[in-house]
Amino acid sequence: MAVVIRGGTVVTAEETKRADVYCEDGIIKAVAPSLDVPAGAEVVEAGGCYVMPGGIDPHTHMELPFMGTVTTEDFFSGTAAGFAGGTTMIIDFVIPNPKQSLMEAYRTWRGWAEKAAGDYSFHVAVTWWDDSVREDMGTLVREHGVNSFKHFMAYKNAIMADDEVLVNSFQRCLELGAIPTVHAENGELVFRLQQKLLAQGLTGPEAHPLSRPPEVEGEAANRAIQVAKVLGVPVYIVHVSAREALDSIIRGRMDGHRVFGEVLAGHLLVDDGVYRNPDWDFAAAHVMSPPFRPKEHQEALWRGLQSGHLHTTATDHCCFCAEQKAMGRTDFTKIPNGTAGIEDRMTALWTHGVNSGRLTMNEFVAVTSANAAKIFNLYPRKGSVSVGADADLVVWDPAAGKTISARTQMQKVGLNIFEGMAVTGLPAYTLSQGRIVHAPDGSRAVRGAGRYIDRPAFPTVYQAVTRRNAALAPQPVIRAAE
Amino acid sequence: MAVVIRGGTVVTAEETKRADVYCEDGIIKAVAPSLDVPAGAEVVEAGGCYVMPGGIDPHTHMELPFMGTVTTEDFFSGTAAGFAGGTTMIIDFVIPNPKQSLMEAYRTWRGWAEKAAGDYSFHVAVTWWDDSVREDMGTLVREHGVNSFKHFMAYKNAIMADDEVLVNSFQRCLELGAIPTVHAENGELVFRLQQKLLAQGLTGPEAHPLSRPPEVEGEAANRAIQVAKVLGVPVYIVHVSAREALDSIIRGRMDGHRVFGEVLAGHLLVDDGVYRNPDWDFAAAHVMSPPFRPKEHQEALWRGLQSGHLHTTATDHCCFCAEQKAMGRTDFTKIPNGTAGIEDRMTALWTHGVNSGRLTMNEFVAVTSANAAKIFNLYPRKGSVSVGADADLVVWDPAAGKTISARTQMQKVGLNIFEGMAVTGLPAYTLSQGRIVHAPDGSRAVRGAGRYIDRPAFPTVYQAVTRRNAALAPQPVIRAAE
Amino acid sequence: MAVVIRGGTVVTAEETKRADVYCEDGIIKAVAPSLDVPAGAEVVEAGGCYVMPGGIDPHTHMELPFMGTVTTEDFFSGTAAGFAGGTTMIIDFVIPNPKQSLMEAYRTWRGWAEKAAGDYSFHVAVTWWDDSVREDMGTLVREHGVNSFKHFMAYKNAIMADDEVLVNSFQRCLELGAIPTVHAENGELVFRLQQKLLAQGLTGPEAHPLSRPPEVEGEAANRAIQVAKVLGVPVYIVHVSAREALDSIIRGRMDGHRVFGEVLAGHLLVDDGVYRNPDWDFAAAHVMSPPFRPKEHQEALWRGLQSGHLHTTATDHCCFCAEQKAMGRTDFTKIPNGTAGIEDRMTALWTHGVNSGRLTMNEFVAVTSANAAKIFNLYPRKGSVSVGADADLVVWDPAAGKTISARTQMQKVGLNIFEGMAVTGLPAYTLSQGRIVHAPDGSRAVRGAGRYIDRPAFPTVYQAVTRRNAALAPQPVIRAAE
Amino acid sequence: MAVVIRGGTVVTAEETKRADVYCEDGIIKAVAPSLDVPAGAEVVEAGGCYVMPGGIDPHTHMELPFMGTVTTEDFFSGTAAGFAGGTTMIIDFVIPNPKQSLMEAYRTWRGWAEKAAGDYSFHVAVTWWDDSVREDMGTLVREHGVNSFKHFMAYKNAIMADDEVLVNSFQRCLELGAIPTVHAENGELVFRLQQKLLAQGLTGPEAHPLSRPPEVEGEAANRAIQVAKVLGVPVYIVHVSAREALDSIIRGRMDGHRVFGEVLAGHLLVDDGVYRNPDWDFAAAHVMSPPFRPKEHQEALWRGLQSGHLHTTATDHCCFCAEQKAMGRTDFTKIPNGTAGIEDRMTALWTHGVNSGRLTMNEFVAVTSANAAKIFNLYPRKGSVSVGADADLVVWDPAAGKTISARTQMQKVGLNIFEGMAVTGLPAYTLSQGRIVHAPDGSRAVRGAGRYIDRPAFPTVYQAVTRRNAALAPQPVIRAAE
Repeated sequence: MAVVIRGGTVVTAEETKRADVYCEDGIIKAVAPSLDVPAGAEVVEAGGCYVMPGGIDPHTHMELPFMGTVTTEDFFSGTAAGFAGGTTMIIDFVIPNPKQSLMEAYRTWRGWAEKAAGDYSFHVAVTWWDDSVREDMGTLVREHGVNSFKHFMAYKNAIMADDEVLVNSFQRCLELGAIPTVHAENGELVFRLQQKLLAQGLTGPEAHPLSRPPEVEGEAANRAIQVAKVLGVPVYIVHVSAREALDSIIRGRMDGHRVFGEVLAGHLLVDDGVYRNPDWDFAAAHVMSPPFRPKEHQEALWRGLQSGHLHTTATDHCCFCAEQKAMGRTDFTKIPNGTAGIEDRMTALWTHGVNSGRLTMNEFVAVTSANAAKIFNLYPRKGSVSVGADADLVVWDPAAGKTISARTQMQKVGLNIFEGMAVTGLPAYTLSQGRIVHAPDGSRAVRGAGRYIDRPAFPTVYQAVTRRNAALAPQPVIRAAE
Repeated sequence: MAVVIRGGTVVTAEETKRADVYCEDGIIKAVAPSLDVPAGAEVVEAGGCYVMPGGIDPHTHMELPFMGTVTTEDFFSGTAAGFAGGTTMIIDFVIPNPKQSLMEAYRTWRGWAEKAAGDYSFHVAVTWWDDSVREDMGTLVREHGVNSFKHFMAYKNAIMADDEVLVNSFQRCLELGAIPTVHAENGELVFRLQQKLLAQGLTGPEAHPLSRPPEVEGEAANRAIQVAKVLGVPVYIVHVSAREALDSIIRGRMDGHRVFGEVLAGHLLVDDGVYRNPDWDFAAAHVMSPPFRPKEHQEALWRGLQSGHLHTTATDHCCFCAEQKAMGRTDFTKIPNGTAGIEDRMTALWTHGVNSGRLTMNEFVAVTSANAAKIFNLYPRKGSVSVGADADLVVWDPAAGKTISARTQMQKVGLNIFEGMAVTGLPAYTLSQGRIVHAPDGSRAVRGAGRYIDRPAFPTVYQAVTRRNAALAPQPVIRAAE
Repeated sequence: MAVVIRGGTVVTAEETKRADVYCEDGIIKAVAPSLDVPAGAEVVEAGGCYVMPGGIDPHTHMELPFMGTVTTEDFFSGTAAGFAGGTTMIIDFVIPNPKQSLMEAYRTWRGWAEKAAGDYSFHVAVTWWDDSVREDMGTLVREHGVNSFKHFMAYKNAIMADDEVLVNSFQRCLELGAIPTVHAENGELVFRLQQKLLAQGLTGPEAHPLSRPPEVEGEAANRAIQVAKVLGVPVYIVHVSAREALDSIIRGRMDGHRVFGEVLAGHLLVDDGVYRNPDWDFAAAHVMSPPFRPKEHQEALWRGLQSGHLHTTATDHCCFCAEQKAMGRTDFTKIPNGTAGIEDRMTALWTHGVNSGRLTMNEFVAVTSANAAKIFNLYPRKGSVSVGADADLVVWDPAAGKTISARTQMQKVGLNIFEGMAVTGLPAYTLSQGRIVHAPDGSRAVRGAGRYIDRPAFPTVYQAVTRRNAALAPQPVIRAAE
Repeated sequence: MAVVIRGGTVVTAEETKRADVYCEDGIIKAVAPSLDVPAGAEVVEAGGCYVMPGGIDPHTHMELPFMGTVTTEDFFSGTAAGFAGGTTMIIDFVIPNPKQSLMEAYRTWRGWAEKAAGDYSFHVAVTWWDDSVREDMGTLVREHGVNSFKHFMAYKNAIMADDEVLVNSFQRCLELGAIPTVHAENGELVFRLQQKLLAQGLTGPEAHPLSRPPEVEGEAANRAIQVAKVLGVPVYIVHVSAREALDSIIRGRMDGHRVFGEVLAGHLLVDDGVYRNPDWDFAAAHVMSPPFRPKEHQEALWRGLQSGHLHTTATDHCCFCAEQKAMGRTDFTKIPNGTAGIEDRMTALWTHGVNSGRLTMNEFVAVTSANAAKIFNLYPRKGSVSVGADADLVVWDPAAGKTISARTQMQKVGLNIFEGMAVTGLPAYTLSQGRIVHAPDGSRAVRGAGRYIDRPAFPTVYQAVTRRNAALAPQPVIRAAE
């Protein structure tokens, strides 16, 4: 199985150059200005196109169990929708129930994911603490290619990690060379505000953002980052939606600490007006946490990407249909949280990031794949166009355009949060493991073709952190005996 | 009983003017350029001196019970030492044990305080939560002149208030028109760092600041302020020692929220070098929380005072003798926390604040008395030199100098943290309730002459907060029936 | 001539209290809870009202000569309009032409101002530099009660002060104890942008804000403040309109420097949408510099007032009629810059500041009169309600309301920038020099009754600055001879 | 001529990997885990070593004419000293006198540089303005491979560019796709402070930093950046030495603008204590502008590198001997400004950056070569270890150590600012154009072997800037005819 991508311009996080790309056995074998086409190799004509690493979406929830049902998008349909948008790898989440063994949950998710069409990996959530959790974290890192653990600071009385869990788990991550990631919202405040709003008779989706104001996110992000800084462990904040949370990241980074931030395409482009839409279903379809924010936050998030304080873009792809959303008809706190986006992330970012002059093309690659690959230690296997790398590629046609719509999407969800957005810049072809998996004539995704990708511990950033911890080790004062 | 202070220059937070001051029956009866001396009135010659409101120290711990003993300074000796330094009122703390009734603790402290020579009031700590606490808070505000409640975010497994207690108590404060105050240190992190340091064999006082780095304070201050902001209640951060905590205050204030900051004279002038002193007793004598900080924090704190982001100066006066400190000889976490300062606060601030050009004299009055009086709703009864105000005054001789020393102090503690500091600017006379209580020939403090001062609820700042809360009340979206 | 204001609540920057106010011979003679009415005294019933210091507008341009004509509002009509709005004193500007003697210009303006109905003073602009300017600054400060000098960083090829003039004049201010004030816009950039926009065919008022973007203001403010900081002289930034300029002030203040900021009622409440209005006359009527800004700047300015980084509110009252504005019909750079507001400043601020909960009533007094009085050394003669102060007062009815309109205003200008704004809180009576000058039945302003008010040098803030300069004086290193 | 570097670990800005490197004809021909050694190829054993791109020093002044003499280091000796430290390319400066033709000056410098041992390029300074300057800028960019122009905001009455020159030149850079670079110090303030200090009798080197306080740098940096932002052109600030200047960069970057910052090894590691050294020669030897700063600035600069707000490291290598420095014996303003460092930059940064845990090895490569190559459009020809790149490489031995000293250096200057610093991590071999130019047995630098390197216009960053400028182009309002 060989493919030559011919005539295109290769764009990576580092450079832009005219080059053909030759893929064989799932691997990039050559990148050079003019390659011969071996016999039997398929040719993709990429004239006028950019050849870039396939997107990595580091934040998805495929097939997430919820209240006896599951999200509408499974690992196959979800990764296939990703292909349609140029995304070739996801990092999904294993979320154990409190008291559930991490290993048990991990195995369950691994089973569900076997149907995936594209490559995948898992963050594992730490939702409680005892010695078995501590042990399982070690097993997962050493034997199962997990190098990141997720912490929810929200969802009181459910999966919320309090300060004690945070401190224990962050410390354990440091020992293991794994990166703690954090959903940053102060769960105590969210709980209090939900009760207050319901008591005031605000039961509709318009109450959702009021129960999770930006301060709630900014506070939690700051707390997680300061805890990480004190313990000397890097930290990654997922779905940064508010200027306040970004500011917390910036403060941490400006103090020399290694803090990484992720932003969702939705938070960059959708504002909180959706929650006051008179159509309940429409409003409820947009319920996710953190919520969409007033417009000024969006400009701040773009600036975070531009100035290097936000590093990755994701979707938190988590699909619920209208019937599922309707569970919260009389109580907004019962609306299942989640929106889709894996199919639209890259084109939305290209349109509003590159075409607008906010980002260079190289920065686009950095924030859609390379940075995630580096932080989660997949680089240069993923996130690069280099000899030896996995042949996960997108051939990007900057002139192609369309209008995003739920009616024409592959995503299995009734509403598209970008409905009606005109985009310019779309995948012409997507390759996964050196195979064309999306082409102008449609999807060629294969159920179960995706692989679980091990992510080794101690990504490069640990080099700095562990040296620094050593350099700063305190010394006792020698005092005369009494 | 009448006194005329003659020939001085009256300095208040607002203005500087030549005026005599006539006091009778404990009250200022006249302030004018040239007053006649009524028959029988005592005359204080104030030529060359400034006549200012007596200092208010809003943070003291007299006679604090600790491990079966009490601090060495009682309410009489402590307030008398205050007089010697120009301070005429203190706000001390009632600290219930977890599960102890707030009313019971309040009555106990009221009893101890009866011996005070000067006026006093109490902040009451909220160290736990149930309905009785909620009720007692109401009783204290409505019937006992308490308008501030203290929260310790540190001291895990003891008096620490977790997020749930904070949220409950802050909300209750808002209903009552009382101001929540906060000791801002992340208790979970302090606990973890203490364990870690002890495990590393760092058992001496040099480990104390390492267990409470600035981030620990900055994080907690930020959390308390953001919680207050979300709930719409003003908040006051006690003993701000670190730039990080000051920055948290600044952020809150720049967002338009009503946040107040207190700084200790010690944190302005003493650095963390003391903890590495080879003399264990010396090092241990400086153990207090938050600890003294590296020098760069001191300049930041001064700038906080100058730019109006810190409002009050205090001492956290809390005296332990060498024997008491020795309880932590082999484990720094067992050294009782506390240092003295009520006698030196004003001269230290004058010397390093006014003489250095950092503060104007009017600002000196603001940060030593007027601001505390306004925040805790004692103004203009306290903190002003105006007709009708309590005749608590200090006649300040800007030319007088001395070298601070434990050998010559009134404070009942073996070590003075300002030992050896040359100061210029000292009280010539101090008046409490219109009586001379300190004079060049020494103390005239009278045991039990001090009064408990009621502080009414809803200080002025609530005017803005409550109007704003009302203005921002959310409205539901009216949607068609299904 | 005596007046008793009876039954009201006195509100100052410091406190709120029930008190009557007795005025005689232009002076406040008594402030007490219940005063007898002397024979012959006029009684103002103030039940339900607040009695506050009359407003001080520190930034007006009455009767400003411009291109052979003058602004439509003269010193009489302008101060009378001020009375209608509760403002009892203005500080206007003497603006010499480059090369014109400061003394000559000063005398000219003094002549024009003799018709004023209310008290007034003058900032004097430094628009060029030579030894005579230096001398005249000394004469003005020592003999004519001027303690502030204005510098325009914009208006290239006209009155712009370049860095050399700034440095010379700031240094001279320091010697004299006068405060430099600055119109902060980078004149070079404005000039360049104007040329560019005209070349692009953008000749209408919509180009005005594009020629003066926020960066232009932020840069100049930062430059002026840093120059002042390096030289050790306080500085006052007029008409801060942009977050960027506010941030420059905040940085200066956070470094411990004495920087003051003024904001116009217009910049707090009007946004830049006006410049794209299809009616040229409407758009042109709003042309002033700095221009009105996008909405997010307004919230920042309010926060500046709340957090104490902006100190005074003004209007830059400068009226041109439609015919005058039409001079720029084909070239927006020729539209005379200026808008009105002296009549509406206080009610607009009360409505949007106090009623909304952004400011307390005491803060309202601070930013409408007391702070200006302190900065420009008029306090407590102006800006206070205290015995001995000038009886410039406003009796404020918080329940009175109206809709602002050019049709019903006293201001002599065709368009009101607050047209249609519903306000609640209006003057019931205004007193100037102890006389009622505005009452429910209309204006009682008297032509020529206003006095020129001397402002002494070395306001309190110089106490800190000069001590600090002395404390920081550098010392040479003594080195061995070669 | 072929070389195989065998057994080493290749470190680039992107990744760390075991690989051999094969160089032929000055070019890297292969990078792979295990390469055969062709006949005749020289072998460099790199076991235990890192193979990295040779350093780029983007700020040197070799052979700079000054007051009738020239700096002691010429292009040959200077580039050879660079080789000894692992640096293989410099970007030096062409500095025309005011009124001198840019082309003439450019040709003069090109002549001097022909003796260089390593590759080089030139920034060209814009020290004045007229149409010929504008024309010459075009010629230099289009025909001579210059893509950066330097502006001195200091040095009044000499080469200082005022706002008008800045605005003209920045605008011209934008048209040409060239990057303006800025020496940021407010020349007017420096001049005034110099006069003031001399008048106070401070004539020694201790006055040098007092004449150029951090505010002077911060102000100028802010001004240049805001001017660039308003005009829509990227900007590069050279030798950032003060937190204030860094903060200006950060503000610009956080607003989404493309601002780059350079820091000197000296400013990272030397503090201003040197100026108060009792030895005049020692103190004078450290005179450079901006001066060395108090220690707290150094930590801020490191954090700038860590957080990505500073991008390149340089030396401003500019050597004057003691006799030349002595020209300012009685007047510090006459001491020629300049210090050395090209030989020590990389080891100093490795020791204090990588060994301390402040930077990862990849970040080390980014800030010593790759970022400069990207900003000045030399990447991946320079700054990478990739097939097709110039074979400018350093084989870095992380275990090698020495103590820096002027006695053992190649640099032609009497004093080394890092004298006595123990470093760990040194070049074992340096390759330029595929030739070993420095080896354990000493220098193999060849006079004249260096090449002038063209730098094409429109580096990648212009992609974003020019799209953004287009996207934000203003539109007129269409109004009805009168």
